[in-house]
Amino acid sequence: MKYAAQMSDLDTFLAGLPDLPDHCVVRESEERRAYECDGLSAYRRMPWLVLLPETVEQVQAIVRHCQSSGIPVVARGAGTGLSGGALPLENGVLLSLAKFNRILDIDVANRLARVQPGVRNLAISEAVDQHGLYYAPDPSSQIACSIGGNVAENAGGVHCLKYGLTVHNISEIQLVTIDGELLTLGGRALDAAGYDLLALLTGSEGLLGIIVEVTVKLLPKPERAQVILAAFDDVTKAGAAVGSIIAAGIIPAGLEMMDKLSIQAAEDFVHAGYPLDAAAILLCELDGTSEEVSEHVFKVRELLKSSGATEVRTAKSDAERVRFWKGRKAAFPAVGRISPDYYCMDGTIPRKALPQVLQTIEDLSKQYGLPVANVFHAGDGNLHPLILYDANKPGELERTEEFGGRILELCISVGGTITGEHGVGMEKINQMCTQFNEAELQQFHAVKAAFDPGGLLNPGKAIPTLARCAEFGSMHVHGGQLPFPELERF
Amino acid sequence: MKYAAQMSDLDTFLAGLPDLPDHCVVRESEERRAYECDGLSAYRRMPWLVLLPETVEQVQAIVRHCQSSGIPVVARGAGTGLSGGALPLENGVLLSLAKFNRILDIDVANRLARVQPGVRNLAISEAVDQHGLYYAPDPSSQIACSIGGNVAENAGGVHCLKYGLTVHNISEIQLVTIDGELLTLGGRALDAAGYDLLALLTGSEGLLGIIVEVTVKLLPKPERAQVILAAFDDVTKAGAAVGSIIAAGIIPAGLEMMDKLSIQAAEDFVHAGYPLDAAAILLCELDGTSEEVSEHVFKVRELLKSSGATEVRTAKSDAERVRFWKGRKAAFPAVGRISPDYYCMDGTIPRKALPQVLQTIEDLSKQYGLPVANVFHAGDGNLHPLILYDANKPGELERTEEFGGRILELCISVGGTITGEHGVGMEKINQMCTQFNEAELQQFHAVKAAFDPGGLLNPGKAIPTLARCAEFGSMHVHGGQLPFPELERF
Repeated sequence: MKYAAQMSDLDTFLAGLPDLPDHCVVRESEERRAYECDGLSAYRRMPWLVLLPETVEQVQAIVRHCQSSGIPVVARGAGTGLSGGALPLENGVLLSLAKFNRILDIDVANRLARVQPGVRNLAISEAVDQHGLYYAPDPSSQIACSIGGNVAENAGGVHCLKYGLTVHNISEIQLVTIDGELLTLGGRALDAAGYDLLALLTGSEGLLGIIVEVTVKLLPKPERAQVILAAFDDVTKAGAAVGSIIAAGIIPAGLEMMDKLSIQAAEDFVHAGYPLDAAAILLCELDGTSEEVSEHVFKVRELLKSSGATEVRTAKSDAERVRFWKGRKAAFPAVGRISPDYYCMDGTIPRKALPQVLQTIEDLSKQYGLPVANVFHAGDGNLHPLILYDANKPGELERTEEFGGRILELCISVGGTITGEHGVGMEKINQMCTQFNEAELQQFHAVKAAFDPGGLLNPGKAIPTLARCAEFGSMHVHGGQLPFPELERF
Repeated sequence: MKYAAQMSDLDTFLAGLPDLPDHCVVRESEERRAYECDGLSAYRRMPWLVLLPETVEQVQAIVRHCQSSGIPVVARGAGTGLSGGALPLENGVLLSLAKFNRILDIDVANRLARVQPGVRNLAISEAVDQHGLYYAPDPSSQIACSIGGNVAENAGGVHCLKYGLTVHNISEIQLVTIDGELLTLGGRALDAAGYDLLALLTGSEGLLGIIVEVTVKLLPKPERAQVILAAFDDVTKAGAAVGSIIAAGIIPAGLEMMDKLSIQAAEDFVHAGYPLDAAAILLCELDGTSEEVSEHVFKVRELLKSSGATEVRTAKSDAERVRFWKGRKAAFPAVGRISPDYYCMDGTIPRKALPQVLQTIEDLSKQYGLPVANVFHAGDGNLHPLILYDANKPGELERTEEFGGRILELCISVGGTITGEHGVGMEKINQMCTQFNEAELQQFHAVKAAFDPGGLLNPGKAIPTLARCAEFGSMHVHGGQLPFPELERF
C-alpha cells in the first residue's frame, strides 16, 4: 500500500504535532462532515482529519509530519471550487487555510497588496477601495472564494477578457513545499530571474505545494463603466457580433452571452429587464476614461446593430447598469430555482465555433433528455453550459456526468480546451486524456515529482495517470480520431 | 567525466545523423568561429560542432543522438542575447535555429500568428502590418533578434510596461524535449488545463527544451501615439515624476529615462534634439484612441511640470516623435562611440529606490575608475547602466565585471532583482546565489531534472549549482546580511 500510514492511529499522528493548538484540530465526524465536498457537491468523501493551522510554522510542521508519516494532504480555501479540487481523502489530512484571513500590507505606491491565502477575493477590493484601487479578477463566487483558492485554480471572471486571469494579477507567492521548506516565488519586478515558478504554481490545483501568502497587483478603478444590452433572434448572429467587436480592436471589460433558457430563468429570479423573447442576449461592458467609454459605446452600438441585433439598450444610470449585470451574475442560482439540481460545465472554444457547438449541445440535450442553459464569457470563448437534472431520479446524475464529458470532448474537437476557469480537479480528469498526449502527460508527472516525489499533495486530481487514460480509452487530439469528427476544427 | 563522449570522433557522431544534409553541418573551425559568442562578447568559446537543422524531425533526431551520446546541446537564435545564454561549449553541439525562419500562419480573426523560432521579432509586425496588427514586445535588438530567443529570455522592450513581456504575448509553443518528444505547451484559449508549462518554458534560457514553433498574440495598432520629452536638472525629480504619472493611473506605452552621459552620447550620435544641459530626460509615450491620448498628454504634461521639469516638449509631428525615440534607441551604440568597449548591465529596482541607486552607482563609478551611462525603463524599474571600459587595458575587463556584479547586488539590496529582460545566462550566475536561498535553488534544479535529468541542455547557465554558490560566498537576501546594508530596502 502506498499510504501505509493511513491505518496509523489519529492520536499517534496528532502527538507528532505537539505545537498545534486543540482549536486547530477537527476530529469529530460531525464537524468533519462540513469538509466532505467543495462546490462540486456530486463528489463527497469524509476526510480522515481536518487541520486549521494559524501560522506558517504550523503549516510547515504539518506537511513535514504528513510526509514522514506518508499521509496525503489536500489543501482547501473557501471550498467554492467547482471541479472538486478540494475533495478530501478518507486516508488524508484536509488542510484548511481558513484562519489565514488577514490582509498583511497595502502598498498604494506600488499598487500591491500582501494577503494571506484565506482572504476573500472581494475583501481585497473592499480594503483598497478608499485608495481608488481594486483587484481585477472577479469569479462569480467572489464574495466567498479565497485568494489562495483563486491562485490554485487560476480563477478568471467576467472581467478577465480585458484584465487577465489570476496569474496576470499576482506578483509573488510564499509556498510551503511538501518538505516543509518556505519558498518565495516571483517578486515585485516585472520579470524574475530563474524559472517562472510563480506561473507554474498558479493553476496547479494544490498538487505542488501549499500557498501561505499572496502578493496581488491592484489596478486603479476605471473612471467610468457603461453597459450595453443587445438582443438577438438567433444565437449565430450574437456570436458574429462578438467577433465583430473584437475584430474592431475594442477590448470590452466584459462581454457575456446568455441563451433563451438562461435569460428566462434570470429574469424570473431578479427582474433584470431582459427581453424574454430573445434567442440570446449580449452584455458588453466598456470601461476607461470618460472620453474613451463614450467613443467605444458609440462604436459597439453600431457594430451590434449591423450584426442584426433586434434591440440595443445602453444602461441610462448606474442603477440600470447594476441591474443588467444582476441577471447575469444570478444566472446560476436562477437556474437552480427551475431545476432540483444543475451541473455547471466549463470549457473554452474558438469564438467562431459557437454556432456549431451550441447546435451540438442542443442535439446532445435531446439525446440525453436533459435541458441545458448556456451562459458564455463570449469574449474569450469560455462556455458554461448548465445541465439541469434531478439527483433523486435514479441514473440521472450518471447521465448528466456522461453528457458533461461529451460537452468537454466537443470543446476539444473544435480546437478548444476542457477548462476555462474552473480547473480540472476530479471532474475533468478523464478528458485530460483526450486533451493531452502521452509525452505531455509524462512531462506533467515529471514536474509534479520535482515538487512532490511521494505524490502526497492532492493525489488523484488534475493530472490523470497513464493507466487511467488507458482505461478511459484516450483519444488524444494530436493522434487518433476526435470524438466529434464531423465538426470543423478551428 | 560527465561528458565522456566529448572525445568521440566528429565523424562517428555525424554518422549517427544520416538524415542531416551536409549543408546543415558546420565543422570547419573558420565557420564555427561565427558562433563563438552571442551579444555578450566578453565570453567566447569555440563550439565542437554547429548544426543548423531545417525540420522539426531533424531537431528531434539531433537531440536524441546527443542524449544517447552524452553530448551537451546549446540552442541559439539570432545570437543577440546580452547575458551569454547562447555561449557554446567546447565539448558540445551548438544548435542554431536560423533556418527555422518561416511565418507559418497568420490568423487575423483570432489575432494570432504561428511562426518558426528563427523568425525575427520585427518581421512579425511587418508581416501583419497590412491587417492593422502588430506584435507588441520590442527589445532594442528587434530588427535582428528572433522570436525563439525572445521566448527563451522572456524578452521585454520599451513597450512592456503597458503590453507585457514575451510571456504575456504568446499563446502556444511546440517544444522538442531532450528525449526528442514533441510537446504542445499552452493553447489558443485564455487558460490551458494542466500545469502552465508555457510560462515555465518562457525565460528558461534553453535549459528545458528546444522551441521549434511559437504562436504569438497580435494586437491592433493603436489609433494614435504621442511622445512627450521632459528635461530635469536633477535625477531625483525625474524619478518623482515617474512615480506621479504611475500613481495617477496612467499606464504609458513607454516611459524611459536617460542620464547626462547617455543624453550627450545619443545627441552627438543621432541629433535627436535632446537638451544637453539636462541632468536627466524622460520620454513618455502615450497611445490609444485619439481622445484618450489627448486627455493623457494633457495630464502627463501637468504632472511633469508640477514635478519640476525645466522643459516639457510634445512631439509636434510623427517625424519629431520618431526623432525623440531615435536618441533613446541609439543610446547603446552611441555610448559605443565614446568608449572602446561598454558593458550593458540589466537589473530591476523599485522605482522609489532610483535616487539612492543612482548615487551609489556614481560612488562605485569613482571607486572603480570607470564611467557609467544610465538608461532606464523607468516605468517598470528596469535599469540599464552601461559601464565604459577598454578591453585592451590590462585588468579593465575584470574590474568592469566586478563593478557590474556590485550593481546587481545593489539592485537586490534595495528590494529589486538581478534581471530585467536580458536573462541570467553566464553573466549573472553568481548573483543568483545572492537572490535565491538554497531551498529555492534546489527547487529550480528539481524542475530542470524533470525536463533534462542528464543536464545536457545549456549546462552551466542561468541556475548556479549549490557548490558554485558556496564558492562564490553567497549572501542570499532572505538570510544573511545584504551587500549594501546601509541602503533602504523597499
